[in-house]
Amino acid sequence: MGLVVQKYGGSSVADAEGIKRVAKRVVEAKKNGNQVVVVVSAMGDTTDELIDLAQEVSPIPSGREFDMLLTAGERISMALLAMAIKNLGHEAQSFTGSQAGVITDSVHNKARIIDVTPGRIKTSVDEGNIAIVAGFQGVSQDKKDITTLGRGGSDTTAVALAAALDADVCEIYTDVDGVFTSDPRVVKKARKIDWISFEDMLELASSGSKVLLHRCVEYARRYNIPIHVRSSFSGLQGTWVSNEPQGDQPMEQAIISGVAHDTSEAKVTVVGVPDKPGEAARIFRAIADSDVNIDMVVQNVSAASTGLTDISFTLPKTEGRKAVAALEKTRAAVGFDSLRYDDQIAKISLVGAGMKTNPGVTATFFEALSNAGVNIELISTSEIRISVVTRADDVNEAVRAVHTAFGLDTDSDEAVVYGGTGR
Amino acid sequence: MGLVVQKYGGSSVADAEGIKRVAKRVVEAKKNGNQVVVVVSAMGDTTDELIDLAQEVSPIPSGREFDMLLTAGERISMALLAMAIKNLGHEAQSFTGSQAGVITDSVHNKARIIDVTPGRIKTSVDEGNIAIVAGFQGVSQDKKDITTLGRGGSDTTAVALAAALDADVCEIYTDVDGVFTSDPRVVKKARKIDWISFEDMLELASSGSKVLLHRCVEYARRYNIPIHVRSSFSGLQGTWVSNEPQGDQPMEQAIISGVAHDTSEAKVTVVGVPDKPGEAARIFRAIADSDVNIDMVVQNVSAASTGLTDISFTLPKTEGRKAVAALEKTRAAVGFDSLRYDDQIAKISLVGAGMKTNPGVTATFFEALSNAGVNIELISTSEIRISVVTRADDVNEAVRAVHTAFGLDTDSDEAVVYGGTGR
Repeated sequence: MGLVVQKYGGSSVADAEGIKRVAKRVVEAKKNGNQVVVVVSAMGDTTDELIDLAQEVSPIPSGREFDMLLTAGERISMALLAMAIKNLGHEAQSFTGSQAGVITDSVHNKARIIDVTPGRIKTSVDEGNIAIVAGFQGVSQDKKDITTLGRGGSDTTAVALAAALDADVCEIYTDVDGVFTSDPRVVKKARKIDWISFEDMLELASSGSKVLLHRCVEYARRYNIPIHVRSSFSGLQGTWVSNEPQGDQPMEQAIISGVAHDTSEAKVTVVGVPDKPGEAARIFRAIADSDVNIDMVVQNVSAASTGLTDISFTLPKTEGRKAVAALEKTRAAVGFDSLRYDDQIAKISLVGAGMKTNPGVTATFFEALSNAGVNIELISTSEIRISVVTRADDVNEAVRAVHTAFGLDTDSDEAVVYGGTGR
Repeated sequence: MGLVVQKYGGSSVADAEGIKRVAKRVVEAKKNGNQVVVVVSAMGDTTDELIDLAQEVSPIPSGREFDMLLTAGERISMALLAMAIKNLGHEAQSFTGSQAGVITDSVHNKARIIDVTPGRIKTSVDEGNIAIVAGFQGVSQDKKDITTLGRGGSDTTAVALAAALDADVCEIYTDVDGVFTSDPRVVKKARKIDWISFEDMLELASSGSKVLLHRCVEYARRYNIPIHVRSSFSGLQGTWVSNEPQGDQPMEQAIISGVAHDTSEAKVTVVGVPDKPGEAARIFRAIADSDVNIDMVVQNVSAASTGLTDISFTLPKTEGRKAVAALEKTRAAVGFDSLRYDDQIAKISLVGAGMKTNPGVTATFFEALSNAGVNIELISTSEIRISVVTRADDVNEAVRAVHTAFGLDTDSDEAVVYGGTGR
């Protein structure tokens, strides 16, 4: 008998019908001889509705109270799910984040999990119950206040509970069939990935893939908890994310796991920065002090004639205004010429651990973009990822071209020949 | 500086506007130099919507999960109210029933408060915050499960907190101006009562007055917490409920506090009961065993010729079916003739401690009914109350006639002359 942690997102429990469907699936896992712990998000648009209400009474809702408010959403869905399960003749008990022992720091609205002490959950499942736990929420260690975990919080709750309970698997149920080689809305021939390593999944997540958030994958990797991402609307196998392939999955990893894209970023270019030590540090200290997270950073070699260089970086569009304001303040100190802000960009990333040992991946990538008539504005690479910035208008065509070039399209068994050597 | 506990019902916090209005009023109390603890109900129809959802997923929702579900409602309103108060520049912290130390027994959906340990609330107000507490909910002493207090639970939370915090007053804000001498929807000339004793209020509450529930008044009486019932829509003084009149209120109590009516009951008559010891006990044991609460009980003297008597009692209409079924089972054992069930009745009650020392109240009451052409079917009295059962169709006319007869109409300064002696 195993212990399974299942997580259902808001779209899976959007209404009474959805909750009943989820209840059936949970009971199925229990009938298969497992101990089952279920983590749920708030129903459908509940969280958004609560946020709207908050903004009606207060333009800047306070952290502590805002968290108290939002956690009502999961309280509703978890209680309803427990009722629906009982209605199918099985025992279920629901627990708030606090009752489930999800201990966090005190940073409201984006708390981090410090510890999970799942004593009540353990007792509940040992007594034969299905335990339902509110995702996205915890209780602060010092003040005993209710906290929320921020974006992707419910997935993180599920993985953290799976780790604390030493679960066999953490199943993340969602409204898609799994992780795809690219966004199926853009690439019709995108293929569901059967298995992907934690490392590749981490790169995909930070490159724009929305199915799993970086934070949750990182947690799973640290505690080595296999994640199974699958649809709550079908019984199909989804995507396994783990250190090693599971069961009958092919042992050999694909060279390229997928092509991700991200249109949520903007590009800032600091033009005419004196090319001497400390200037870049000064720029990025100003950015960091204004609490802006940046993504890619690119510096070109300076023109010998002027001794000036340009530094470009990307960041979430939502933080663009803050970053530009912070930089303007440092203009005199740094002595740069001008700032350029561009939010009409897209980032396209090719991810795959196989690229380390397969020469020519970069060349094939760039050739595919070139053949599609897509211009590359910035390039940045990690060991298992290559990212480029292009015009936002080009993104769909670019992603499709790259997806095809690497033989990722479904029903395509053609071998891919990489031109050139090395990356 | 005093400590004030304020309670706002669902209609007062029905939407963002209502919450902002309540926030202003709370801040006003704070500005007047008080420490303020606020108890809130769920917004408007939230609780009903949650009940509907529960019934969609499970025809018989379980106690524990049902309580978990319903408590989401107060969690939303209390967090929003705290935000709205902060938005006015004052510090506020919200607390769940559990955080506020409301300890109950484990009877889900209608838990009783065992103890209140308001340590966190005390600390919060001592630090200068306005403390907002979720009404209607607590945590069970043995299992640490979330419980709800059932009907009138938020009022009871407020009074219980006021007692535990040794508050100066418990203000119950509602959508009417206070307690009236009769239901203003029926009696246009009904008068707001400035002060009423706990005892009279208890009788009014158990006779159909809806403003305060018996349970909350009983709690306040036991701990001698003055209640001030008032409107959240106006700044007017409402009704004080306490042992003694407050401030400049007249020391002498009115002879009659009010005329209450109740159309939620039905009448059961057990016809032809052998008039010998033990028969009545057998009948009411059967009723009690089926968990039905009864109200009035009347037995007439038996007809000498037959040795048979009739026993009538009233009970909530909602329990009528259960009671009749229980009685049918005892028919053979008791040997009664037949059962009559009548749900077209009304109960009209005259309440006032003054009737103990003022002769003729009963006569005036019955004369008023007679003059209005209203027939009396049952009569039952306590020390400070007289109740009659009439046809449901007659209730409005009957209440108005009695209200006028006792000089309770507004702008009526006529002395009331009671005919006859004694009751």
